[in-house]
Amino acid sequence: MELLKERILAEGENLGGGILKVDSFVNHQVDPDLMNEAGKEFARIFKDVGANKILTAEISGIAPAVTTGLHMGLPVVFARKHKPITMPDQVLLTLAPSHTKGRKVELIVSPEYLSGGARVLIIDDFLATGATILGLVRLAMTAGSEIVGIGTLIEKSFEKGRERLQEVGVPIHSLASIKAMEGDEILFD
Amino acid sequence: MELLKERILAEGENLGGGILKVDSFVNHQVDPDLMNEAGKEFARIFKDVGANKILTAEISGIAPAVTTGLHMGLPVVFARKHKPITMPDQVLLTLAPSHTKGRKVELIVSPEYLSGGARVLIIDDFLATGATILGLVRLAMTAGSEIVGIGTLIEKSFEKGRERLQEVGVPIHSLASIKAMEGDEILFD
Repeated sequence: MELLKERILAEGENLGGGILKVDSFVNHQVDPDLMNEAGKEFARIFKDVGANKILTAEISGIAPAVTTGLHMGLPVVFARKHKPITMPDQVLLTLAPSHTKGRKVELIVSPEYLSGGARVLIIDDFLATGATILGLVRLAMTAGSEIVGIGTLIEKSFEKGRERLQEVGVPIHSLASIKAMEGDEILFD
Repeated sequence: MELLKERILAEGENLGGGILKVDSFVNHQVDPDLMNEAGKEFARIFKDVGANKILTAEISGIAPAVTTGLHMGLPVVFARKHKPITMPDQVLLTLAPSHTKGRKVELIVSPEYLSGGARVLIIDDFLATGATILGLVRLAMTAGSEIVGIGTLIEKSFEKGRERLQEVGVPIHSLASIKAMEGDEILFD
């Protein structure tokens, strides 16, 4: 998606160690128009996969997942990282190593909203090592749901997450794929 | 907003202790269409306050803030509860007691995205005791921003948050205001 690539080139910042800062339009400040365009694009890409639910992870996955849900007419479930008191005692929980946090985080979904019969489209902000998305895949599969597609705003292809996700056997699409970050230069695939 | 009230009556669950569970369309699973309608309604209500930025708190404030931003053409900043590594060392941080967590949580905003000159519309999911929203007000004021309005999806008027927010001196609007929850009954103002 050209609009997203242009924005990454204009405002993205290589912090070193494979970290791309896009806090001005994705991770701290959000551009709703850009997210809406991304949602439209995901809806176009995944229109034929037969999804009936979108799954994402809090926090930064919520905006693109909600705009995608809007354009596909689908509900969005966001996996929680801390179990709120409104959740039942029995939940689905998995651990995923967080790249940017340097530790494992919990991903928690209530079986009330993810169950057998769901055809799940996963939408998230980043595809880096694939660890978070694999966590979402495990949650959905444990719930008896079927994964039908994976979409992310930004892929860092040099972190090989896509290879780890091949085993899921579903279409994987990123709206911008970065092959290298060298100094101030960001290179797309 | 009738649509929201109907949804609360149909799916909201009084867990006791003043806790309203709306996990099926706000706090864990999100209904993007409902959020879009809420965003439209906030955009209508606050069209004349001269906002140039929307501020919310992660996590459940993000969806209604983004749809409001979409309809108002404004960027959304979501206060983080944990400082990510992409944030600068110097940030704005305040503590707000969390009703549903039983402890204080941090609310953190980078001065990169909230500064003097911003005219801030605060959008959040709940107005209960007002503690989170007062935390956002403190962050914005410390940044030198001006608050121009406060909008929430659901107000629990029996928790008196609105009274605590009067001192801010701006319009406060909730799309559904609950005056009491008794057993299975939810009563609106």
